[in-house]
Amino acid sequence: MLLLEFSMYPTDKGASVSEYVKGNLEIIDDSGLPYQLGPMGTCLEGEYDQVMDVVRQCYERLSADSDRIACQIKMDWRRGHVDRLQGKVETLKAKTGRDLST
Amino acid sequence: MLLLEFSMYPTDKGASVSEYVKGNLEIIDDSGLPYQLGPMGTCLEGEYDQVMDVVRQCYERLSADSDRIACQIKMDWRRGHVDRLQGKVETLKAKTGRDLST
Amino acid sequence: MLLLEFSMYPTDKGASVSEYVKGNLEIIDDSGLPYQLGPMGTCLEGEYDQVMDVVRQCYERLSADSDRIACQIKMDWRRGHVDRLQGKVETLKAKTGRDLST
Amino acid sequence: MLLLEFSMYPTDKGASVSEYVKGNLEIIDDSGLPYQLGPMGTCLEGEYDQVMDVVRQCYERLSADSDRIACQIKMDWRRGHVDRLQGKVETLKAKTGRDLST
Repeated sequence: MLLLEFSMYPTDKGASVSEYVKGNLEIIDDSGLPYQLGPMGTCLEGEYDQVMDVVRQCYERLSADSDRIACQIKMDWRRGHVDRLQGKVETLKAKTGRDLST
Repeated sequence: MLLLEFSMYPTDKGASVSEYVKGNLEIIDDSGLPYQLGPMGTCLEGEYDQVMDVVRQCYERLSADSDRIACQIKMDWRRGHVDRLQGKVETLKAKTGRDLST
Repeated sequence: MLLLEFSMYPTDKGASVSEYVKGNLEIIDDSGLPYQLGPMGTCLEGEYDQVMDVVRQCYERLSADSDRIACQIKMDWRRGHVDRLQGKVETLKAKTGRDLST
Repeated sequence: MLLLEFSMYPTDKGASVSEYVKGNLEIIDDSGLPYQLGPMGTCLEGEYDQVMDVVRQCYERLSADSDRIACQIKMDWRRGHVDRLQGKVETLKAKTGRDLST
């Protein structure tokens, strides 16, 4: 399964962009894919085409409203591993024996 | 305040690296800075020198044990805004009116 | 036009991965899109679907040969601007009045 | 040696930010470190503290002039390897046997 974290935002709208990022979160939340919103981006889990389709929808929506968009994506694909959205964090809690902040 | 998300891991140790990333989480947890561990990295909040000191400690520890290290960092600095580790996510929940998955 | 920089590599093959990254560069070079290989990734210029198709081909090839893959992508889309692969660097040379190292 | 690629820019200044990024390039060019400016960021080569000092200077300069800054960094450290700014690209040219676009 693929974990993909991304953030996508306009850079021509001034310092406050949550009104635009809001649209991305609606697309992500409607996608039906497992996801986790964090302070610096959103992680999605799924097959390559599933998660990339969500990224594409966000791009299409934002590029309709903006003149310049920045996007950063990180992917971590691992054969045969599932439920990684929770699993990677749980592994680190177990390995450290600490109730890490999540 | 600065939000900094980073992931740092050896790339010469095979597919499973949690034994090495464990050391980073201990450093982060011991730093006393507010942080949030996620599936694709850890977000820290603090002044530039505070968060960069944590990154440096992780680098020193990992480079002692590895022959090759990859690291990705994203920063979001905003003048006059604090408690952003929680605040950015709360803003998006409020704007969308949805109980987004976090 | 969209500028997309990406690097994609297996993390289960030890410290040296150029044998695997070689396949990506062949895909990129065969794509016919303008690109620039750099020390930390390759920049492509094109329409969203064009550049994303290249990324997908690299993913398919690497995931056939590897058990774990890491990928980082940065995008910069700007309405109405073309030839940005050269243009952004030229603008900075002109603005600084320096023969910057490229 | 460490290869570090970064881009840092204000997000509160509208779509055109080269006037601000210009200052970063002057800092980088004055640092004396080997570097390469590309379409999506600049790669520096050096010891950890050397390259991080350049990043810090850019942060200090930009944060004096801006209300919000975005920065993305990628690092690739490899024990015992030097001249990697040119070397990684040359390796891929040799492996592919192609005159890749650089």
